[in-house]
Amino acid sequence: MIKTDILIIGAGPTGLFTVFEAGLLKLKTHLIDALPQPGGQCAEIYPKKPIYDIPGFPEILAGDLVNNLMEQIKPFEPGFTLGERAQTIEKLEDDTFVVTTNKGTKHNAPVIAIAGGLGSFEPRKPPIPNIDLYEDNGVAYIIRDPEVYRDKRVVIAGGGDSALDWSIFLADVASEVTLVHRRNEFRGALDSVERVAELSKLGKVNLITEAEVKELKGDEKLTAVGIRHKTEGDIHFETDYFIPLFGLSPKLGPIADWGLEIEKNAIKVDNSYDYQTNVPGIYAIGDVNTYKGKLKLILSGFHEAAIMCQSAYQRIFPDKKYVMKYTTVGGVEGFDGTKKEAKKEVVKSIN
Amino acid sequence: MIKTDILIIGAGPTGLFTVFEAGLLKLKTHLIDALPQPGGQCAEIYPKKPIYDIPGFPEILAGDLVNNLMEQIKPFEPGFTLGERAQTIEKLEDDTFVVTTNKGTKHNAPVIAIAGGLGSFEPRKPPIPNIDLYEDNGVAYIIRDPEVYRDKRVVIAGGGDSALDWSIFLADVASEVTLVHRRNEFRGALDSVERVAELSKLGKVNLITEAEVKELKGDEKLTAVGIRHKTEGDIHFETDYFIPLFGLSPKLGPIADWGLEIEKNAIKVDNSYDYQTNVPGIYAIGDVNTYKGKLKLILSGFHEAAIMCQSAYQRIFPDKKYVMKYTTVGGVEGFDGTKKEAKKEVVKSIN
Repeated sequence: MIKTDILIIGAGPTGLFTVFEAGLLKLKTHLIDALPQPGGQCAEIYPKKPIYDIPGFPEILAGDLVNNLMEQIKPFEPGFTLGERAQTIEKLEDDTFVVTTNKGTKHNAPVIAIAGGLGSFEPRKPPIPNIDLYEDNGVAYIIRDPEVYRDKRVVIAGGGDSALDWSIFLADVASEVTLVHRRNEFRGALDSVERVAELSKLGKVNLITEAEVKELKGDEKLTAVGIRHKTEGDIHFETDYFIPLFGLSPKLGPIADWGLEIEKNAIKVDNSYDYQTNVPGIYAIGDVNTYKGKLKLILSGFHEAAIMCQSAYQRIFPDKKYVMKYTTVGGVEGFDGTKKEAKKEVVKSIN
Repeated sequence: MIKTDILIIGAGPTGLFTVFEAGLLKLKTHLIDALPQPGGQCAEIYPKKPIYDIPGFPEILAGDLVNNLMEQIKPFEPGFTLGERAQTIEKLEDDTFVVTTNKGTKHNAPVIAIAGGLGSFEPRKPPIPNIDLYEDNGVAYIIRDPEVYRDKRVVIAGGGDSALDWSIFLADVASEVTLVHRRNEFRGALDSVERVAELSKLGKVNLITEAEVKELKGDEKLTAVGIRHKTEGDIHFETDYFIPLFGLSPKLGPIADWGLEIEKNAIKVDNSYDYQTNVPGIYAIGDVNTYKGKLKLILSGFHEAAIMCQSAYQRIFPDKKYVMKYTTVGGVEGFDGTKKEAKKEVVKSIN
């Protein structure tokens, strides 16, 4: 059982900065994230995109913001459970919580900070009847191990970077790669679009545009797809795998069943004080929460984290009074023995 | 009359970032600050001190934070009235406000954002009876023009950098410089302390330590001070000027008389929604406001500015609905014609 003071669910910018604010109060933190690396959307979805509204940065790449935050929190030695999804929560008699992941890892803490962003990003599924029946039986929404497709026939659907990049990659792995897209235009990096066009000319990728996969065929396992083409009508197309790559869409996930008050796919919190949910000891900060006037901005998550940690401190140490010291005055004392502080003025006798 | 959408009082970090958030909503801004340059305390009091709790900056000098913010808001071309203090406010029949400075400059706006920080920094006065009577008649708390003291006798009091630096500077200007400090130790930059010790040995600065100025003498104009020395007792000391340099202390100032609800020297706001004061159209953000759980952190001012601008938009355009666009998606369009945006994906026909 992993034990900590504040268990943070979600390692996006808000979750990461919570480590810092907790650290200033000498509280230990541990983060759980379903993604294999910290940074949330910023690291997973748009690391190379500039953000313009982080205060003090006229422009910063999302990935650099994450790197900076990781450096800023390093002195507070946060723990990480990555690549696992927080699944269930249980309250113990001592008023602490146990959170268990989908892989069975257990975490115990008196305070839970849900910083889950827009939730877990789930693949967008195409509206094909019975598609669920073929999942793991020929249909996949995410390519985890390309070797699965070696010497197999693969139909990929989609018109963005994922569909383009995987078509290029699998052209050397699969026995046959077919890319189906409903338009003639692709929306992706220029060199990816050009590379697919080239592979199509070389006969290494079958390109079927202005067409959509409308039907899945096969007993138990997928054996063929039905493609509807704009001008050529319905096509029966034999394949071993169908991989629709239509992007990711956020879902609140298992947290939705934790007994928290939910509104518009977000967790309601008390923004007039400490961003606590309807369950004492469970807070929700950043994009995952909602309240009157809520703005889903990274900078708001930072503020909510700072406020929330003060309340967590009161919950953990009900009898102590915390006196805030400015970092410019008091410096930052890491749990790793490091100490950062402003140069003090010299006090010197003059005679 | 200067006209704008949001009149921001206080050009510290919170006030500056308000320009950015307002600009994203296409609202124009103008800032008033009593200090001669933007940046508030960060620029005036501790520009060379590192801050450790600005999210995304493991360490940043206060002065650099201000410079970054100035660059970030540049596209939105804010106006500045610097070196003037917002003195009075008046509400017009059209529900807009007119704010007049101590120098008579008038500003008109439908929304006022008070981002006054801890207030104006006023000099700390020593507790000497009747000191007020000698102000501008031999007593000064701030040295505005050193030439005033040319060939005059000056008594400076204090043990910090200001007292040390001005003693050094005036040693070459005044006919006689006396530095009175109640301890034998000075708290300042090492080279300043050493330079004063040297000037004292050369007879260019009279150093009287373990002593305090306790009395001011003279009809109408100051002619002498009474100094109480720890071991030598009372000393009558003739001088033309007495300059106590005991640092600055924050005062809310004239804003305290604007009819706003005040609590603990700060302005009460509705933190459950939009950081508005008890007067509709007047908001208070950053260190100047107070509410349950308030933290006087720069990062909280940033959040409050973002929320406040949304409410200001509703006040200015009651019939429009603003749909927030992320800067990563929509970019930033400056009023100066500049446009920053993330590289768009290429949309390219493949056949």
